[in-house]
Amino acid sequence: MGDGNSAYGKKKFKRSRSHFADRITADGRDGWPVTEGRYRLVACRACPWASRAVISRRLLGLEDALSMGIVDPIQDDRSWRFTLDADGRDPVLGIRFLSEAYDARETGYPGGVSVPAIVDVPSGQLVTNDFQQITLDLATEWTALHREGAPDLYPERLRDEIDDVMHGVYEDLNNGVYRAGFATNQKDYEEACTAVFHRLEWLSKRLAGQRYLVGDTITEADIRLFTTLVRFDPVYHGHFKCNRWKLAEDPVLWAYVRDLFQTPGFGDTVDFDHIKRHYYEVHTGINPTGIVPLGPELAGWLSAHGREELGGHPFGDGTPPGPVRPGEEVPASGRP
Amino acid sequence: MGDGNSAYGKKKFKRSRSHFADRITADGRDGWPVTEGRYRLVACRACPWASRAVISRRLLGLEDALSMGIVDPIQDDRSWRFTLDADGRDPVLGIRFLSEAYDARETGYPGGVSVPAIVDVPSGQLVTNDFQQITLDLATEWTALHREGAPDLYPERLRDEIDDVMHGVYEDLNNGVYRAGFATNQKDYEEACTAVFHRLEWLSKRLAGQRYLVGDTITEADIRLFTTLVRFDPVYHGHFKCNRWKLAEDPVLWAYVRDLFQTPGFGDTVDFDHIKRHYYEVHTGINPTGIVPLGPELAGWLSAHGREELGGHPFGDGTPPGPVRPGEEVPASGRP
Repeated sequence: MGDGNSAYGKKKFKRSRSHFADRITADGRDGWPVTEGRYRLVACRACPWASRAVISRRLLGLEDALSMGIVDPIQDDRSWRFTLDADGRDPVLGIRFLSEAYDARETGYPGGVSVPAIVDVPSGQLVTNDFQQITLDLATEWTALHREGAPDLYPERLRDEIDDVMHGVYEDLNNGVYRAGFATNQKDYEEACTAVFHRLEWLSKRLAGQRYLVGDTITEADIRLFTTLVRFDPVYHGHFKCNRWKLAEDPVLWAYVRDLFQTPGFGDTVDFDHIKRHYYEVHTGINPTGIVPLGPELAGWLSAHGREELGGHPFGDGTPPGPVRPGEEVPASGRP
Repeated sequence: MGDGNSAYGKKKFKRSRSHFADRITADGRDGWPVTEGRYRLVACRACPWASRAVISRRLLGLEDALSMGIVDPIQDDRSWRFTLDADGRDPVLGIRFLSEAYDARETGYPGGVSVPAIVDVPSGQLVTNDFQQITLDLATEWTALHREGAPDLYPERLRDEIDDVMHGVYEDLNNGVYRAGFATNQKDYEEACTAVFHRLEWLSKRLAGQRYLVGDTITEADIRLFTTLVRFDPVYHGHFKCNRWKLAEDPVLWAYVRDLFQTPGFGDTVDFDHIKRHYYEVHTGINPTGIVPLGPELAGWLSAHGREELGGHPFGDGTPPGPVRPGEEVPASGRP
């Protein structure tokens, strides 16, 4: 998850586990029942982990059920800030820093403040920052509030395969790019970077003949892969030194990620400006000047991908989501 | 020129002028007449300025006339070192650091130590580190010692055009990538990076219909462009943030640089290992970890380029240079 704190250290990069792992469920067994309008998703558009939840919420049509606040892509020493909102306060929670919701839940919590976070609006308390579980619960526990025509993003009969694919992709790629980028010695970097490209090659082979990662519809596995791939050329390739080749140089993966980007619910959540500024400005340990590159060119993201020929049904028996909710559009500065 | 010292500063990056600008000429008017075996070229294979001279020497067949020493791509606080040689000493000059030749010329010289440098072997004194003049003089003053079939790299009738092209390429591209990479604020970076890509686009248009930059043979202008382009994807794209696109994404420039790379005298002087290690290990101000990326893939450098179809005569009425002199081969670690 995006915490911007645990990134550096003398030792090998290790992602800290989510601390607040309560689940919001249909039966409310952790004390947090799925309830329309009760919770607020706090996300950063720069963060791949938070962006998974932003996409799931769009695909499932949970905009009314679960409101959303977007933090500034640049943290300060108090971490994620609502400086994009008028007066620097989240209009629903009334707080200036996400850490206030953490404090409301556990006074003096010593860990990092991360997104995605789901906050209980009435109490102002953080419910969960468990980035691996949040999207699965949106897909399977929030079903009563899904829009009509919402896809099944985590179909029962495919869960073993989805879990298996997601596990390998997480280790080598989703988290692997961070291990490469935050490595403090050549050996750790080379191990991580090698694994990144092994996994990309594996994915390129798998996706050469099928439109989506598992089955013939969009699933959780595609969402998790997408939020890493969309950041690959703009950030991971240069900033994290994952530079054996650009995604744009691999015809299969480049077409796959553009296909998803052009699918309602994916590209319309992506803010390349937030993405680039966050990584390049925040990680002064690997980019001391804080200079944000002008590249790469973004025009290609909207070009034809030709993946329809592979068949598949993006939303299964369902339908695409409607337009982005007014007020939640990505500004022109972040779009291709 | 490669000095590795003047790179950083609060102000805009400015390349220092060569201090030792004596010329070695046929008539010896500066006291340094062209003489077979009298001088030694000291170069670093990582450095684009020094590599120009290494290429010119090969193309013109000056290996016997002008011997060559290669320094380690990594300087220490005493600058360029002969640590690649047995006992860490240049076998001809007998010195451990290039700075010793500078000291022999001017005691306590306070400026940077740069390559390319030409040293007078009998006295051990530096003659010139004037990187802009050295190759022109090799082409025009050393003619009595050129090999049979040596090309005319600076033909009289084309000099105005060559000078004009080289001037724009120097400002925007050869030196422009350094201005982008060493910028200490966003504005300077964006100005430099924009100029880099304007010039690349200009070059791509110019080279779409003609095999070489000026006329229909290889000239000094191609040599100077080549030593920048060959470093573009491996170093300038990521390390210097010149990342609107990779050279490999521009069909014209990518074919042009591969054509030259595969021409005897060009690619056989290039050590990608030296290039990558120098930039990524030495510039700790922009790459504090000193980690050297695994990419980009190099296999493509040897692929067919198809530029023969544009006509042109690489060596005019002359012939290609013979094989690389034994002992001067680029190690396998640096080759595609």
